[in-house]
Amino acid sequence: MAASGAETDLVSFGIVGCAAIAQKNVRAIQLSSNADISACASRAHSSCVEFITATRAKTKTKTGSLPRAIEGYQALLDDPLVEAVYIPLPTKLHLEWAVKAAEAKKHILLEKPTATNLEELLKIVQACCDKGLQFMDGVMFMHHDRLQCLSSLVGDPLFGPVKRVGVNFSFAGSQAFLNGGDIRTRPDGDPLGCVGDLGWYCIRIALVAFQYRWPTYVCARASVCTPDGIPLDVSGEVVFEEAKPDTLEPPHVLTFHCSFLHPNRQYVEIVGDTRVITFDDFVIARSEAEVSLQLESFPVAGPLIDRHCRVASRIDTYRFQGCRQEQRMIENFADCVKHIRSGKQADLFWPHVSIQTQSVLDAVMRSVRKDGAREQVEVPKGWSHPPTHNS
Amino acid sequence: MAASGAETDLVSFGIVGCAAIAQKNVRAIQLSSNADISACASRAHSSCVEFITATRAKTKTKTGSLPRAIEGYQALLDDPLVEAVYIPLPTKLHLEWAVKAAEAKKHILLEKPTATNLEELLKIVQACCDKGLQFMDGVMFMHHDRLQCLSSLVGDPLFGPVKRVGVNFSFAGSQAFLNGGDIRTRPDGDPLGCVGDLGWYCIRIALVAFQYRWPTYVCARASVCTPDGIPLDVSGEVVFEEAKPDTLEPPHVLTFHCSFLHPNRQYVEIVGDTRVITFDDFVIARSEAEVSLQLESFPVAGPLIDRHCRVASRIDTYRFQGCRQEQRMIENFADCVKHIRSGKQADLFWPHVSIQTQSVLDAVMRSVRKDGAREQVEVPKGWSHPPTHNS
Repeated sequence: MAASGAETDLVSFGIVGCAAIAQKNVRAIQLSSNADISACASRAHSSCVEFITATRAKTKTKTGSLPRAIEGYQALLDDPLVEAVYIPLPTKLHLEWAVKAAEAKKHILLEKPTATNLEELLKIVQACCDKGLQFMDGVMFMHHDRLQCLSSLVGDPLFGPVKRVGVNFSFAGSQAFLNGGDIRTRPDGDPLGCVGDLGWYCIRIALVAFQYRWPTYVCARASVCTPDGIPLDVSGEVVFEEAKPDTLEPPHVLTFHCSFLHPNRQYVEIVGDTRVITFDDFVIARSEAEVSLQLESFPVAGPLIDRHCRVASRIDTYRFQGCRQEQRMIENFADCVKHIRSGKQADLFWPHVSIQTQSVLDAVMRSVRKDGAREQVEVPKGWSHPPTHNS
Repeated sequence: MAASGAETDLVSFGIVGCAAIAQKNVRAIQLSSNADISACASRAHSSCVEFITATRAKTKTKTGSLPRAIEGYQALLDDPLVEAVYIPLPTKLHLEWAVKAAEAKKHILLEKPTATNLEELLKIVQACCDKGLQFMDGVMFMHHDRLQCLSSLVGDPLFGPVKRVGVNFSFAGSQAFLNGGDIRTRPDGDPLGCVGDLGWYCIRIALVAFQYRWPTYVCARASVCTPDGIPLDVSGEVVFEEAKPDTLEPPHVLTFHCSFLHPNRQYVEIVGDTRVITFDDFVIARSEAEVSLQLESFPVAGPLIDRHCRVASRIDTYRFQGCRQEQRMIENFADCVKHIRSGKQADLFWPHVSIQTQSVLDAVMRSVRKDGAREQVEVPKGWSHPPTHNS
């Protein structure tokens, strides 16, 4: 039997649902310095055993045994050896099982999209707050060294206010995928389709770039939906600050395209006054060995060309080596849990940024349903201030 | 006195208007293998002399003398030693002086935007056709080796139909520039503002990528205009083929952002079925020494990640060395002139692609005036077929 994390220094994880995405995070738990895997639960015992044995090499606990296979999610939640849960269930099931997990006093790492709408997420977060539990969503890129660098670059006064974030995130779903063969195209799985699966990341990276300000409104359109109305290809704009024509100030916006109908693109550009940040693998790093970020700096506002040549810009390439973002996510989450063990509060930065993302995503979905109508972003009571990490 | 180009093998150029942009093309003429500069004209003799002496080293003719300074555009057009003209005048003056140039039997290389609207351009092109003259606009990137490579890549059946072209083209105009200190922000200069100056290139690269098909409609919005209504920051969509929801086919579109209010960005992405082309200096090459183009190829449609890793894509970087696109433009134009000398027809590919670009640009301007309304692209009579080069 696996050791209880609470009794050792390691945070002991249970996996609620043996989805494919779970393999990545089970490996991350195994690689982490401060967490271990205790058990996996599935509705059917057999599929849980299958998941564990199929990934045998990667799912061993730190004591060398295999994690326990548990039939039924509630049985895992009732297990006293499990201190925290990772929930990769279909979005439609998040409210039910995340609230049950909180009631069972398990800290929660919840796969994105966190809920089918903001109301559900607020219930989940409230359940966590009521029990003093840590909540975090599964956006791995938040934990990459590159993101800390990005935050620091856009926070530099020389960057000036961020004026534009442009993001393209797509991948080509197979015909089976697109025709309901994946939870992301099924009404009973993730009814938010490409908005929930890909748009979530587009919105999140913009929130980072705009330093977690609340945007005001959203316009978005789906060009293609499934017969059930699940969006497969969506373009939109999220306005953080409207244009000020009197001072020739452009709007401060995110423009995004997310789609299951195009080959993989993961391009992001963040445009300031005289500086531009770009990288082309913002969600899934091209390599664990090294990723990069390009900062282009222009000397001053002025004409594009100076006599025959382009105005010289300076290009700095920042490189980040050996960072496994999913491992960092597990470690950051487990650190929060350990802080709570030692009597500190949960870090509200994480639920805050999930709530912001979900609220913008809700506005995108409302706009999509109204063919691009302008939809205000709801700021739920108590979450209006920019989030900060608890110290 | 400069030798007449028509009497030698070199095509003899006159420059109508001593704009800053002319310096680049005067140098290109000097560097070219088949053209020479004969004379420069300005409204005032003094500014013409100033232009020539200021760029003395670069404006010498191939016989070592300086080009002649001519007062008044008509005097240059009447000069029998001038065989072709390059016209970098403000857009508002294009119709008048291009038609006069054609009447004086000069071949015309016309700076973009070619006219303030399609009707004007059709008159200019008609005037050239009537006299059997070559017409070409000043889009340098059309003549870069990279563009030929791009055309061949998107023409490859393996690329599949182009589904999406995304373009960002901007530069940060100074306060003086934005407040009417440049012809591009003056109603009597170029009333098309950033659409004429930057959008022209966005539309053109999309026409190349979509293999010169006519798009059907356009939606575009200006977020900021000058008090005179000249657009400074515009986003839009040009639809080449509408979505086919029944077969889950996304729309085939250009999305673009062009602006005088952001630092320089020149990013283009061209998205096919399983391949994506990108480069980030599509208008003004980062370097004359070398530019590149990236082709990313994905094996098949399928899930984004395969277990823990990104689906392997293959990245091919095409490099192009030692290509001066403006020199190539002059040489290609002069070759057309020499073909006409030898009894062949003018190459109608060039006016055709200008007409397509201007027509789409007109639709963009109409949509901007109507705050994003859907505007059909007009296909003028006689220009409906995709252009081909005369052989």
